[in-house]
Amino acid sequence: MPETKYKKTEDFNEWYNEIVELADLCDKRYPIKGMNVWRPYGWKVMNHIDRLIREQMDATNHQEVSFPLLIPESSFQKEADHIEGFGSEVYWITHAGANKLEERWLLRPTSETAMYPMFSLWIRSHTDLPLKTYQIVNTFRYETKQTRAFIRVREIHFFEAHTCHVDFEDAEQQIREDKEIAGRLLKKLCLPYLFCKRPDWDKFAGAHYTISIDVLMPSFRTLQLGSIHQYRDNFSKPYEISYETETGKHVYCHQTTYGMSERILGALIGIHGDNKGLVIPPEVAPIQVVIIPIIFKGKEGPVMKACEVIEKELADAGLRVHLDAREITPGNKYYDWELKGVPLRIEIGPKDVEKKAVVIVRRDTSEKHSISQKEAKQQVLSQLDTIAATLYANAQKLLDEHVYRLQTAEEVQEKKGIIELPWCGTEDCALEIENLLDGNTLGEPVEDTTTKASACPVCGKPAKTWMRYAKTY
Amino acid sequence: MPETKYKKTEDFNEWYNEIVELADLCDKRYPIKGMNVWRPYGWKVMNHIDRLIREQMDATNHQEVSFPLLIPESSFQKEADHIEGFGSEVYWITHAGANKLEERWLLRPTSETAMYPMFSLWIRSHTDLPLKTYQIVNTFRYETKQTRAFIRVREIHFFEAHTCHVDFEDAEQQIREDKEIAGRLLKKLCLPYLFCKRPDWDKFAGAHYTISIDVLMPSFRTLQLGSIHQYRDNFSKPYEISYETETGKHVYCHQTTYGMSERILGALIGIHGDNKGLVIPPEVAPIQVVIIPIIFKGKEGPVMKACEVIEKELADAGLRVHLDAREITPGNKYYDWELKGVPLRIEIGPKDVEKKAVVIVRRDTSEKHSISQKEAKQQVLSQLDTIAATLYANAQKLLDEHVYRLQTAEEVQEKKGIIELPWCGTEDCALEIENLLDGNTLGEPVEDTTTKASACPVCGKPAKTWMRYAKTY
Repeated sequence: MPETKYKKTEDFNEWYNEIVELADLCDKRYPIKGMNVWRPYGWKVMNHIDRLIREQMDATNHQEVSFPLLIPESSFQKEADHIEGFGSEVYWITHAGANKLEERWLLRPTSETAMYPMFSLWIRSHTDLPLKTYQIVNTFRYETKQTRAFIRVREIHFFEAHTCHVDFEDAEQQIREDKEIAGRLLKKLCLPYLFCKRPDWDKFAGAHYTISIDVLMPSFRTLQLGSIHQYRDNFSKPYEISYETETGKHVYCHQTTYGMSERILGALIGIHGDNKGLVIPPEVAPIQVVIIPIIFKGKEGPVMKACEVIEKELADAGLRVHLDAREITPGNKYYDWELKGVPLRIEIGPKDVEKKAVVIVRRDTSEKHSISQKEAKQQVLSQLDTIAATLYANAQKLLDEHVYRLQTAEEVQEKKGIIELPWCGTEDCALEIENLLDGNTLGEPVEDTTTKASACPVCGKPAKTWMRYAKTY
Repeated sequence: MPETKYKKTEDFNEWYNEIVELADLCDKRYPIKGMNVWRPYGWKVMNHIDRLIREQMDATNHQEVSFPLLIPESSFQKEADHIEGFGSEVYWITHAGANKLEERWLLRPTSETAMYPMFSLWIRSHTDLPLKTYQIVNTFRYETKQTRAFIRVREIHFFEAHTCHVDFEDAEQQIREDKEIAGRLLKKLCLPYLFCKRPDWDKFAGAHYTISIDVLMPSFRTLQLGSIHQYRDNFSKPYEISYETETGKHVYCHQTTYGMSERILGALIGIHGDNKGLVIPPEVAPIQVVIIPIIFKGKEGPVMKACEVIEKELADAGLRVHLDAREITPGNKYYDWELKGVPLRIEIGPKDVEKKAVVIVRRDTSEKHSISQKEAKQQVLSQLDTIAATLYANAQKLLDEHVYRLQTAEEVQEKKGIIELPWCGTEDCALEIENLLDGNTLGEPVEDTTTKASACPVCGKPAKTWMRYAKTY
């Protein structure tokens, strides 16, 4: 089988770019840099990811809404930290036709400042709470760093959940639910992750605290897929989102947000793919099983019939199945569907028909089995589960083998991946480690208190906690 | 049952606004006029409409894509008529953060100028044709007229199909397919429509010809839901979209577009609704059947159980069913779900349980029947079909009774609806009729040549065709 020009383990970045293009995920030649065209296949995969997100959000009683893209400058400017954080990366609309607007409008970089003036109208009483909403939209940020498909773009496809609560504890409960949602969602995508509580100087603009959701890419850089934010009443005060309690008092809401972007797709490509192309987890594969007839021209009858029987049986079982009847060689078909990452391939030739058998080939391991037609459906279903489990296990191994819990800065040498070191709690000491690693501070491990951090490797003072560092995208 | 403050037949416009607000479809209080917030229920209905569109487009081998929102001014300016048509109604981005952009970007008013530079890269050979793509996105137009929810807004949710063909005839074939798609789609939405070939002075900017898809609202104004355009090679020349024929010649493509907007939802509300609220066609109703237990507190057991059995049975049959177990009176529940337009209501009380019966109530006619539990599923399925047929028939009656095929201008007096008059083919004579009717030229009837038009009622010259006029939204 032909392989990619660049190899995943040798030149990950070029391999990634090659895959994105060959597998027809997006076209980067659009005349505005960092704003890419979603090609049909890439958009299908993203739609399946969105479907999983909707399932999770709906199952947890979030209501889907859709807010306007444009935000008046006056709405944007109500929360001071937020403006400071986003002001330099928003796009401004100044004119409509030939007319200058009375007030500038900006394209949402995220929707707090679009939603919260409306939440202020929607919420009156404690009976209106909790308010749990989400939307799946595109958002816009003026990126000055080098762009990369799905990973660093200027028009970003993402979901954002926004919730309002009676108090801090109810908002904390929401954050626990968000973490569970992330867990269930990323499990289906075969992506193990880490939650990191970001340091104060690097939290979301306006947040009380921020938890990032990070995965480790095979380049040993981490990729932040999304984040969960506790806002406390930082936004509800300037946006006047308050409610009347049962006893008639007026109280500000506590708020949270939770969002993840198309970087999920970037992670899928990078973590699961190989030198033959994509490997798509069965849950989000546009085609889960491709059936390839092995025929000599003019002798199609019995083979095509056997293919169609299996196709119908699998489709009836709810699987996304495709019978590739194109008039090209089977080898060319294998190449195409391996590139596109279809998890399972079924081959049926004249001899298989005689034996009432089919050949089943796993995309992830290339393992090939002949099985009886009778057990095909059951085998396909169980093989898809096995593929998902294998993808997850491989990604978990990559992560596990590249998280280093160390005590001193000396041990850091040559370690590729995520470094955990004791931390005294000061920004200066964390920045010193960043310099040493030529990396970034990810944040404190969340829910991981198994070993106690001793002394800060920089200042030597007692450590308050562990701190994670890595090279990042 | 309480009714709307404004009555549909007395004050259609105010009734429409009231329904949109009460039924929780959108919130018009967003601080930019004409950019509304989709509330959860309205967004659900729109998503069901989008689902039907995707089904139709996928079944006709259109590929879904997603193009960037922003278009560089230089891409926009390649087709002269197009700029002239849209230049005054686009929004301009001039700054990113504090930086002035080197070139201005605009928000898509429609995506020709975003897509066609890419089509020029995608299409090389006759084997790449036909190219059939579509996307479902929001588009932006600076409306100066009075805005109205779903009918005249500045951020418009819509789908747009763009196709490229080897020649004019293949593009014509696409237009025939588009008309069939419109027919199937609008049938499911119980919306009869007219195709009108727009006059030359009012066709889409850059088109060879334009067919509009119009419905008649109960205010006797027509609402244009969308349009189908034949571009010939008007765009392919400036955007250099050409292909190599089998004999090695380089030829420009012929192109078509087809689009419909959230006005579909506006038409649903206006045409099917009544003084109790929305009436949603079963195909797109977020809830198709609502089950209401009639119980006295403390005696829920057998009634709730009967409700749950029916709920499961209907859900298993693929219906969108909701059991309303809230602790409010049945009357309040009736009110809520009538307002929301749920097509069928099932009521189950202690006596029904004894009789092994359920009461089934149609939203459109308020007809009430007691049926046995056994036949409930079959009855629900057939009643939903009957409701859809009735909604369609009522709308067809409204349309049929208000299309007037006349010969002279005198006959026009007091006629409310759509006027068809003979037309000589000149703009002046059509505009004269527009003045007389205080209305607009819709276009020539498409595929309707049953009666021959005689003399133009304005200039008296022989008529070339019929021309339709109406007051429009």
